[in-house]
Amino acid sequence: MTVLEAAAALREGKLSSVDLTLDCLQLIKEWNPRLNAFQTITAERALEDARRADRELAAGADRGVFHGIPIAHKDLFCTKGILTTSGSKVFGGFVPREDAAVVERFAAAGAVLLGKTAMHEHAFGITSNNPHYGAVRNPWDLERIPGGSSGGSGAAVAAGLALLATGSDTGGSIRVPASYCGVVGLKPTFGLVSKRGALPLGFSLDTAGPLAATVRDAAAALNVMAGHDPLDPSSAKRPFEDYMPPERIDLTGLTIGLPRNFFFEKLDPQVDNAVHLMAYVAQDLGATLREVRVPDGEQLNAIAQICLLAEAASVHEPYLRKQRSAYGEDVRALLDMGRLIPATDYLQAQRLRRRMLKVYSILFREVDCLFVPCTPMAAPLIGQNQVLLGGEMEDVRLATTRLVRGVNALGLPALAMPAGQAQGSLPLGLQIIGPAWSEARLLRIGAALEDRIGVSRAPLSAARAGQANTPVES
Amino acid sequence: MTVLEAAAALREGKLSSVDLTLDCLQLIKEWNPRLNAFQTITAERALEDARRADRELAAGADRGVFHGIPIAHKDLFCTKGILTTSGSKVFGGFVPREDAAVVERFAAAGAVLLGKTAMHEHAFGITSNNPHYGAVRNPWDLERIPGGSSGGSGAAVAAGLALLATGSDTGGSIRVPASYCGVVGLKPTFGLVSKRGALPLGFSLDTAGPLAATVRDAAAALNVMAGHDPLDPSSAKRPFEDYMPPERIDLTGLTIGLPRNFFFEKLDPQVDNAVHLMAYVAQDLGATLREVRVPDGEQLNAIAQICLLAEAASVHEPYLRKQRSAYGEDVRALLDMGRLIPATDYLQAQRLRRRMLKVYSILFREVDCLFVPCTPMAAPLIGQNQVLLGGEMEDVRLATTRLVRGVNALGLPALAMPAGQAQGSLPLGLQIIGPAWSEARLLRIGAALEDRIGVSRAPLSAARAGQANTPVES
Repeated sequence: MTVLEAAAALREGKLSSVDLTLDCLQLIKEWNPRLNAFQTITAERALEDARRADRELAAGADRGVFHGIPIAHKDLFCTKGILTTSGSKVFGGFVPREDAAVVERFAAAGAVLLGKTAMHEHAFGITSNNPHYGAVRNPWDLERIPGGSSGGSGAAVAAGLALLATGSDTGGSIRVPASYCGVVGLKPTFGLVSKRGALPLGFSLDTAGPLAATVRDAAAALNVMAGHDPLDPSSAKRPFEDYMPPERIDLTGLTIGLPRNFFFEKLDPQVDNAVHLMAYVAQDLGATLREVRVPDGEQLNAIAQICLLAEAASVHEPYLRKQRSAYGEDVRALLDMGRLIPATDYLQAQRLRRRMLKVYSILFREVDCLFVPCTPMAAPLIGQNQVLLGGEMEDVRLATTRLVRGVNALGLPALAMPAGQAQGSLPLGLQIIGPAWSEARLLRIGAALEDRIGVSRAPLSAARAGQANTPVES
Repeated sequence: MTVLEAAAALREGKLSSVDLTLDCLQLIKEWNPRLNAFQTITAERALEDARRADRELAAGADRGVFHGIPIAHKDLFCTKGILTTSGSKVFGGFVPREDAAVVERFAAAGAVLLGKTAMHEHAFGITSNNPHYGAVRNPWDLERIPGGSSGGSGAAVAAGLALLATGSDTGGSIRVPASYCGVVGLKPTFGLVSKRGALPLGFSLDTAGPLAATVRDAAAALNVMAGHDPLDPSSAKRPFEDYMPPERIDLTGLTIGLPRNFFFEKLDPQVDNAVHLMAYVAQDLGATLREVRVPDGEQLNAIAQICLLAEAASVHEPYLRKQRSAYGEDVRALLDMGRLIPATDYLQAQRLRRRMLKVYSILFREVDCLFVPCTPMAAPLIGQNQVLLGGEMEDVRLATTRLVRGVNALGLPALAMPAGQAQGSLPLGLQIIGPAWSEARLLRIGAALEDRIGVSRAPLSAARAGQANTPVES
């Protein structure tokens, strides 16, 4: 059931928030031991929230679409009185005194809190297996990764354990799990959604956004999440916008750019086909397709990486000094690497970001958005290190973020959404990148595509039959 | 003659812009060989400007206070078609195609361009002697430094070679020459004056401002210089403000903070006396004096230094790589040092700046401004390396910037103005620091003091008699 369907059913009296919440808690109970999507389950709090939502709705106090809807927050958003680990041992016992802005906003919108979703260590770990809390598993195939770092959020939504989950995206961390888990993920323009109370990683790259079952659910979530926050210095002052796409959508007048270079190189051919198929669907809906060239994506990735490493090292410096052994090996290595980046390289990277953004701004005068793949392949196996792409073996972790990480350096919005399935029934992901503040446009395009092709759900029962609860690594 | 006096005389028909300009050019001819205040003299351009100004004024087209006033620009502000060396060999042959914003604004205000003033190499050299173009000399005593890096501007205004000169201030480079040369210097709030076309050094610290003979001349100059520039990304959007202080000023209701710590430590006692005397004058004019404590000034200086070294190294990296030998030894050493600063230290310094600014913001709820010394002593001798302050020997270059450099890290405005003279007839400098965007207040306080104590001029004839054209170093 989608958020919008549930919201309608609640108002039609077909079910209560308590019913919805109990269903989710039951699914979580059954599936979380296998998926490991939740870091913390807040069953009592959820039922309390649900009962209050039912009371309020019965009394005619309607807080909007999310009133009574069970959701989950990525475990780096601070939750008052509830453990917020950031997937780490360093924050293994951290109980915040305040809610993050995003948590606050969903609570004010009447949402029910099911719990906190599992994630890569500090949203930074590069291995698929969290060294402290184990791997999260992909609901489409329990032997595969859900992608990270918002893997728990992707898996929870894909498996229907939560109707919606929040995520954060510093180098693809919303879009990769959306792609691998076959759900919708929106990385908003830098500054659109407040990051107050979100544990930082690469503070000039970090964004917060939703993972949802459908594009319209993501739009409903963005309506709750977006808005200026004077307490977040990076929060932008933007006029109010309604992100919900209309019912019937025609794409006439829109020009979609299809990059000739970078984004369609070294792909699983099924991904190439799937994205082009989506472009043809858009064309059929009235859009014009245009081939374009994009600036050097590898350079942009390197820029993003320098900023991320330096900023993450800066954020973690005091913790790393005192609790070095509390870090997993790979995160520690990344932070040590970040400590070695000279300030001049960091400043040069920031300069190049501004220059690249100008080039993209010019590109976006010519096209309204870009259709590109989200990941060059479907979800790899847990523990898989290499993948064959374009005839060459590539590191799985590098391949996974190759097509998403540059967008963060530009601060641009990008919508990740399912684009059909590969052989073997794994989802493939389309990424629609737009100019700054074009979320409404991206969601409208996404909704038009989704209206045409429909929504697929992870075949949980198949996954259950197939491989239950296999150990993560041998 | 001050800018305001000259402006009045021009309008009363007592003299023409050509008269004024010829007077300045004559003084420059006579004195510049000894002072070395000008890097480039643009005599023909000046007379052309002056003739046009006279024509326009005669025709009733009045561009305001600076119409027909001969001024000079620090040699790091780009001037279209005129050499802009930044005191360096790297830019030794650089002829810009565009005017800097500041140059553009004075030209639009009808000012006459006498030339470009000499400066420390790249505004960064720490020795008093520019390795490529020789030392600038202090008009009060030709054996002494005028302070830097806007030393040429300070000397030119003090000696009356120009009625006003622009300067830039990254770590005291307007205020130090103001203090050592006995003129008024205003370092504006970061973002108030456009830096488009100003060669950058520490881009998060750099500001542009005027050096003037009087506080009201500085106010008139700020009226020309201030204002939003969409082409300078660091330019702030501020409502229009008239910075000119009223004729009769009462300081009743103002509270002046006198720091107990840091700013009055390790001073020449004459500086301590001079600043306190100015505070008592302000008290006599109605202000209330209050002792305050300021945050650790040494830490703030270290923060400013880290930002400056890293940013300067970043700016100069491409030039240093290709033209290493074109740099003076001390600038090269500073740039090499900057290359070694880790990005994490830079980011930490930026974080501490924001924290320090908050502490100062709270302080400025209690007091309207701070009265502190500009430099801990009067102008040292050319080539002097050590100075005895508070019973200890201190490096002259460190002592010179000790009380001014932190203000740049905070981005706050500060007015430097003469505060009487030391024994031996060298000027001493008061520094009035205020909260962000308080320039009008600082200028009003400064004008009130100046109205009471009057203005002294550098005794050029004495300097002439004393020591003419001694070689800079043996």
